[in-house]
Amino acid sequence: MSQAQPQRGFSQVEFESRTETAQRLMRASELDAMLLTTEPHVRYFSGFLSQFWHSPTRPWFLLIPATGKPIAVIPTIGVAGMQQTWIDDIRSWSSPQPEDDGISLLLTSIRELPLRFGRLGMTLGAESHLRMPAADYRLLEQQLSPLALVDCADLMLRLCSIKSAAEIEKIAYVCGLASDSFNALPGFARPGQSEREIVRAMRIDLLQRGADHTPYIVSASGSEGYSDIIMGPRDRKLHDGDILIIDTGTVFDGYFCDFDRNFACGHASDEARRVYDILYQSTDAGLAAARPGATTTDVWQAMWSVLEAGGATSNDVGRMGHGLGAQLTEWPSLTASDSNRLEPGMVITLEPGMDYAGDKLMVHEENIVITETGAQLLSKRAAAELPVIK
Amino acid sequence: MSQAQPQRGFSQVEFESRTETAQRLMRASELDAMLLTTEPHVRYFSGFLSQFWHSPTRPWFLLIPATGKPIAVIPTIGVAGMQQTWIDDIRSWSSPQPEDDGISLLLTSIRELPLRFGRLGMTLGAESHLRMPAADYRLLEQQLSPLALVDCADLMLRLCSIKSAAEIEKIAYVCGLASDSFNALPGFARPGQSEREIVRAMRIDLLQRGADHTPYIVSASGSEGYSDIIMGPRDRKLHDGDILIIDTGTVFDGYFCDFDRNFACGHASDEARRVYDILYQSTDAGLAAARPGATTTDVWQAMWSVLEAGGATSNDVGRMGHGLGAQLTEWPSLTASDSNRLEPGMVITLEPGMDYAGDKLMVHEENIVITETGAQLLSKRAAAELPVIK
Repeated sequence: MSQAQPQRGFSQVEFESRTETAQRLMRASELDAMLLTTEPHVRYFSGFLSQFWHSPTRPWFLLIPATGKPIAVIPTIGVAGMQQTWIDDIRSWSSPQPEDDGISLLLTSIRELPLRFGRLGMTLGAESHLRMPAADYRLLEQQLSPLALVDCADLMLRLCSIKSAAEIEKIAYVCGLASDSFNALPGFARPGQSEREIVRAMRIDLLQRGADHTPYIVSASGSEGYSDIIMGPRDRKLHDGDILIIDTGTVFDGYFCDFDRNFACGHASDEARRVYDILYQSTDAGLAAARPGATTTDVWQAMWSVLEAGGATSNDVGRMGHGLGAQLTEWPSLTASDSNRLEPGMVITLEPGMDYAGDKLMVHEENIVITETGAQLLSKRAAAELPVIK
Repeated sequence: MSQAQPQRGFSQVEFESRTETAQRLMRASELDAMLLTTEPHVRYFSGFLSQFWHSPTRPWFLLIPATGKPIAVIPTIGVAGMQQTWIDDIRSWSSPQPEDDGISLLLTSIRELPLRFGRLGMTLGAESHLRMPAADYRLLEQQLSPLALVDCADLMLRLCSIKSAAEIEKIAYVCGLASDSFNALPGFARPGQSEREIVRAMRIDLLQRGADHTPYIVSASGSEGYSDIIMGPRDRKLHDGDILIIDTGTVFDGYFCDFDRNFACGHASDEARRVYDILYQSTDAGLAAARPGATTTDVWQAMWSVLEAGGATSNDVGRMGHGLGAQLTEWPSLTASDSNRLEPGMVITLEPGMDYAGDKLMVHEENIVITETGAQLLSKRAAAELPVIK
């Protein structure tokens, strides 16, 4: 059954709600405003969705004041696009202008904001970066003093981690497209083809199913198993006895899926089928553990217990799941120490992985949303037995 | 005639040469080392080519010492991939680890470097950003004192702007694929289709021709013309009398093309054909002016003179061309004030644009390489007359 394509964009109510929630959190953190610089953050509050962020030349700024709508301080090339959003206050300069790329305009805009706490939030902490020259960040700090630039990375990570119904619908839709494409893969992939040929065919299949684009589609393969999951596709051809993994972050309307599927080529070895089964059970354990009130570490522990009982000793991935949505990977992480509480509306991956047969690695992955009562799959559950490409 | 696909990757000699050139520039700038954090910079010196940079969670670091090979300080998930490059010294930590995401390992690695000048280069200036938490940058600065963190953004922009023969071959190849796809477009696009349908068909066509992926493909359309060039594709359907632009940054082996093509739907108005002709002549003027020793501003002036004579008053793009290669847009910019000297090996776009008919905009674009004697087209020259989709 094919899914109905969700409407593109969001209602203005959604942006009002995001902004008001942020402003409530800002008051609690004693922030007079936030200054945001990255694509997902500018898009989260404005709805500005453009591929132009692939051009690293020009900085873009969005100010979230204590009350009222966000204020855009952007290059002139972006004005026509920003005017299509709900943002009214759009200030621009002709960029690139290396000697002053928006900074004096930004300073003026910040100085006009009412101050109560003397604190401006910027994303400075873990899992953040500033998409602007570090020297300009320094200049802001110096010129705005005594206004303090304080970290709001954690506030933004937590805020964006709770998805609205409209966001979840988009993620569910693209998860469905990728699930269908993975299920169709044994129909268009053949032994003798290279990883690159199969990945190219899957890119085309995803587009034909209605995906907007596939920023991330990685593969690995090897006899009896693979040993890394972030480097392919390679020109390596598939042979009988190989295990192939494909992992994709495919996008609809700015929202990602992020999950993988494993395939055996010709036939599967007993060891590969055993490891696949352990990972399948581990994912089931994660699904059962993922509910509001449980922590990311509870879910990690539920999955790890199954893997450890199956003989796993380690893996190099560093975690067994993470948030996703407007980005391929988002906060939080499912690790032995992360210990963040799951809440309804969080969309996360369950991604157990284990080592076997010396240098081999196998990883499973599903995408879920935390609901009031537990976890709901967004990806269509992987086959219970390792699928075979013939 | 179809082009031969270039070999993937680069010889070790190329990485040695890049590193030695950087080290010579570092000595001239009195830098003991450079600390690099972004995908294009890590790839430039290591050859590490992975889609995994779409995951913003983990920082990655590459140190360029005063002599010898680069040193990678990276998450464990990247070790297997980095081991496939020419880099020998790979240090890793299990990431994500929010309380210390590689910083203590990075500090240790920097402290082991021999110091002569007491200066560590980081990209802090124009057209740069640090892909790491700003708080960690602060911590580095504090912990490394009296070692000074000084800007090397300009050094890196200039270094990467001169392409090797192998880099130019990859860019030329993908320019050829995109040229052929644009030329084929009137065969697969029809009036009544939406921008989104046409762009999707072109994505598929590019993959079928051998492109790796298309991170950037934007379109705009409107009756008699369009008014922005960074927001589409939209669901707007093409009607008789429309002008359509598609602009693509398509990639082969990590290298971009970046150029656009304009199409009339059904028929072209006299005004649209007039503006197209002026832009075509403007590009010709840019092609004639682009030679070693000329400046980016000379080329800008040559193009602008033609546009101004044709009645142009302004456009919001902010420049009329730029570098490209490992990124969609790179230094330098073709503006009225940029004034950087063109050198053999630079790959740039010529991108004249002009306003007309009130709120309309038209932009042309070609990709060229500066040779010892002038400019050589990498894209296949646009049709001399506005192509028509029927």
